[in-house]
Amino acid sequence: MPVLLAPERAPALPQLLEAADTVGLQSSILDAGGGRDRRIAGIGSLTTAGASEITFLSNPRLQDQLDDCHAAAVILRPQDWAAYQQRHSQAPPWGVVLCEQPYLLYALLAQWFDQHRLGTLPRGIHPSAVIADDAILDEGVHVGPLAVIEARTHVHAGVRIGAGCVIGPDCSIGQDSLLHAHVTLYHGVHVGARAILHSGVVLGADGFGFAPDPRTPGAWAKIAQLGGVRVGDDVEIGANTTVDRGAVEDTVLGHGVKLDNQIMIGHNCRIGDHTAMAACVGVAGSTTMGRRCVIGGAAMFGGHLTLGDDVHISGGTAVTSDILEAGRYTGVFPLAKHAAWQHNAAVIGQLAQLRKRVRAIERQGPAGSPGLRNDKQDTQ
Amino acid sequence: MPVLLAPERAPALPQLLEAADTVGLQSSILDAGGGRDRRIAGIGSLTTAGASEITFLSNPRLQDQLDDCHAAAVILRPQDWAAYQQRHSQAPPWGVVLCEQPYLLYALLAQWFDQHRLGTLPRGIHPSAVIADDAILDEGVHVGPLAVIEARTHVHAGVRIGAGCVIGPDCSIGQDSLLHAHVTLYHGVHVGARAILHSGVVLGADGFGFAPDPRTPGAWAKIAQLGGVRVGDDVEIGANTTVDRGAVEDTVLGHGVKLDNQIMIGHNCRIGDHTAMAACVGVAGSTTMGRRCVIGGAAMFGGHLTLGDDVHISGGTAVTSDILEAGRYTGVFPLAKHAAWQHNAAVIGQLAQLRKRVRAIERQGPAGSPGLRNDKQDTQ
Amino acid sequence: MPVLLAPERAPALPQLLEAADTVGLQSSILDAGGGRDRRIAGIGSLTTAGASEITFLSNPRLQDQLDDCHAAAVILRPQDWAAYQQRHSQAPPWGVVLCEQPYLLYALLAQWFDQHRLGTLPRGIHPSAVIADDAILDEGVHVGPLAVIEARTHVHAGVRIGAGCVIGPDCSIGQDSLLHAHVTLYHGVHVGARAILHSGVVLGADGFGFAPDPRTPGAWAKIAQLGGVRVGDDVEIGANTTVDRGAVEDTVLGHGVKLDNQIMIGHNCRIGDHTAMAACVGVAGSTTMGRRCVIGGAAMFGGHLTLGDDVHISGGTAVTSDILEAGRYTGVFPLAKHAAWQHNAAVIGQLAQLRKRVRAIERQGPAGSPGLRNDKQDTQ
Repeated sequence: MPVLLAPERAPALPQLLEAADTVGLQSSILDAGGGRDRRIAGIGSLTTAGASEITFLSNPRLQDQLDDCHAAAVILRPQDWAAYQQRHSQAPPWGVVLCEQPYLLYALLAQWFDQHRLGTLPRGIHPSAVIADDAILDEGVHVGPLAVIEARTHVHAGVRIGAGCVIGPDCSIGQDSLLHAHVTLYHGVHVGARAILHSGVVLGADGFGFAPDPRTPGAWAKIAQLGGVRVGDDVEIGANTTVDRGAVEDTVLGHGVKLDNQIMIGHNCRIGDHTAMAACVGVAGSTTMGRRCVIGGAAMFGGHLTLGDDVHISGGTAVTSDILEAGRYTGVFPLAKHAAWQHNAAVIGQLAQLRKRVRAIERQGPAGSPGLRNDKQDTQ
Repeated sequence: MPVLLAPERAPALPQLLEAADTVGLQSSILDAGGGRDRRIAGIGSLTTAGASEITFLSNPRLQDQLDDCHAAAVILRPQDWAAYQQRHSQAPPWGVVLCEQPYLLYALLAQWFDQHRLGTLPRGIHPSAVIADDAILDEGVHVGPLAVIEARTHVHAGVRIGAGCVIGPDCSIGQDSLLHAHVTLYHGVHVGARAILHSGVVLGADGFGFAPDPRTPGAWAKIAQLGGVRVGDDVEIGANTTVDRGAVEDTVLGHGVKLDNQIMIGHNCRIGDHTAMAACVGVAGSTTMGRRCVIGGAAMFGGHLTLGDDVHISGGTAVTSDILEAGRYTGVFPLAKHAAWQHNAAVIGQLAQLRKRVRAIERQGPAGSPGLRNDKQDTQ
Repeated sequence: MPVLLAPERAPALPQLLEAADTVGLQSSILDAGGGRDRRIAGIGSLTTAGASEITFLSNPRLQDQLDDCHAAAVILRPQDWAAYQQRHSQAPPWGVVLCEQPYLLYALLAQWFDQHRLGTLPRGIHPSAVIADDAILDEGVHVGPLAVIEARTHVHAGVRIGAGCVIGPDCSIGQDSLLHAHVTLYHGVHVGARAILHSGVVLGADGFGFAPDPRTPGAWAKIAQLGGVRVGDDVEIGANTTVDRGAVEDTVLGHGVKLDNQIMIGHNCRIGDHTAMAACVGVAGSTTMGRRCVIGGAAMFGGHLTLGDDVHISGGTAVTSDILEAGRYTGVFPLAKHAAWQHNAAVIGQLAQLRKRVRAIERQGPAGSPGLRNDKQDTQ
């Protein structure tokens, strides 16, 4: 487990809470456990955090883990702290931070630690980077070693471009965005402010468009992809995820969209604001998704579909028709021991027939025994 | 939506049709709408194309969109043009291009615009590229910044290698191929003419081959992969797709194969000419696929399978046995609201038993009421 | 098919067997077929191996292929050799190597040929690589062109880092590991000895962690990911596979883990020793997998699950609950011709109802005809 800061650079707990961007989130440090004097060098879990790390209790069922906790401080809800006090007469060996939303406060503190780490990294334009003469780099831009920025691309203030990135011509990258190593942008890709693009991300590769070419039997004529990609503000895109450029118009990711690793967004798709997708999802071309959708891992979407707002798709589900009504949808074959699966899967190919047989029994039932017998012979 | 050419460089419509490679495809410009004088700077959709863009009507059900179309010109079939004239007494505000295959003509025009864009890019060997002394680069080869070409590799005339590509030793790349940024070829990979390889493509990584190593219980001995990868002419491979090298012989993609993004082709596979696969498909090792197959997104293939020619697999389908007969095959669990899915999925594990129960009713049926009652007790 | 060595560098068969690391595996060269004098330049299959290549018979059902085999030598089991002799009176045209495990011996010989190829590659630090002053490179490290090694990273002896790799700060790479081109390690990633990492691998990207941010409706607050990635010894990771860093603690791959291409391992996962996964598998965050598990291609795992040791999951299966008992598990919708699938899939949404109908017939059966008739009306 990483200790993030050297002891002499670790802030005291009150300083840390002040430094972190916790605007709008109330919290207070109690005297109990000596919280105010603790120096916090990192974050740990309830069971592993050491004497210089802060931790949090978010799930009340983990209450018991407080008893063996060796952290410098614990963030917890007032009611969980009250419960602890009922069970213990002595002050805890850790400082106490009360907050109605411990998980969110942990998230914001973790952001502070990560920002602090980023702040220690080298800044500036590495001499090995290859930058076109007519690229525009605003103030405070960092370009890592061996990165490439091509013609007429505009990199806004505070952007950090990792080692080995290739940014094509005629792109723009919004303020304070962070591109990790080995990100690739084709030409004409526009990324908003505060984006985080992880390694291996490819934005703007050609969409998969072909027309049968009747001039050569069996062959495909390429539909050149003339659109671009537009990504809103506050978007995060995971490692090795690809978003293809549009055929004629742009492929669009809204504001606050969060894509995990190894996702594929086809050309002409439009993904609504704040929609989040777990890893390995595939979205075929020209599909439109609403706002605040939540897509489980390895879900698959056909092309030219429309999803409304607030649609949740379970992991592994194939979506092949429009879903306009909010709610959770699932389509996953339940797993079983292999032998049992074999027995049951064999019936899948007879389901329509099985339903017919049941209907026949219902129809001809007790009164229709001769018919029933015939039916039996038909189906065996 | 991108306007691709500056007005002064936009060709007049007759010039554009002449310049584009439309050999074998008939089209004609009518006088109506003043088509011959229009200058075309780009391509748009029926609803968004502006006064300097051409568009097309391919789907007759979109006829009505012609009424509000502001494009410079529209490509459409003679019968759709006749239908428009029946509904309108005046000449349209756009030029008219008649063609029996508007979508194909659009595709060919789009290719022209993209080629034009490519033609404006810098050409030559970037000084930051690292090229082995004994690599062979034919005439007109472009190598982008920070690309690497290793020993004895032969790059044929007109090839364009993007920034940051790594081409291993003993490879060959056929005439006029286009490698976008960050393509990786291991040693001994042979790519045909006119290939398009997108960013993040990896050709020739080791196939996944291991033998249980009885000398260390539980451990795996690596099967070194000594074959290569051979890719035919006119192949396109999408972003972050991987094709592994063969164990002993080569993994082979035929001519005209089109692979979308994030596809995985295992070692020793042989993919037939003109077969096309949508994104996220996985093909396990040693599977052979015929010609002109069409594979939907996220379909999955077991290893050592044989598919015939003209087999279509629906997206999301798992293929675990040979398919020799042409036609379309599907195996997807239909999605439903989560609660409904839960109810129905619970029955999947009882299907074999359910069939047995139906059979028992059919057999013992109306005549066998005592037996039926016993059966009922058995199964509840 | 590649012939790997020039004739003058090809070892004689006895030398080859001695040179390869076959410790613990018995084999013997017979006089028949003149095996001792053969020079072996490469490895081929039974049907394609030429006069300077060795091949092997592992599957007794391929016996007949021996009759047309033109290889320099064949590795086969004593009983298969006896069977050959019964069918032929003359000595074979190929040398004979007897071994109880021909496939394993082939694997070890293939390793020798690949090591030999690696040995011919250039070694040393390429002048175009960018290496931080305080990175530590032990003896015999190779760094390819345009690779980047950042601050405080420790590269142990004998490691080979391919062209264009980016190794972040505070990493370590164990002895004799092989990183192919374009591998990316974020900061704080630790890889054991003898690892093989293929192109496009990304280790240590941020795990997918967000908390609903109640301060902005619908928005997500990022959980910065402060843990790292720890990879054991003898691990191989396929092309474009990603392993995310942990939220608080490390994501862990045990010793001898083998991951194929395009796999996604979420944050906080722990994968047990010698577990092997075929391509395109996705494992959501915080899932723990036991030792010696075998995971078929494109299988998908939910988050926070526990798998025991020796669990086998069939390709394409979605795992959404714990599996503690060893054995093979499957959950795949069987494919069918599309029309048949449509018929049968339509019943999936009625399965719970169908079961109810069967139960009603069983209950009310022959004796309850009025009830049965009502039921029939209800359900149609």
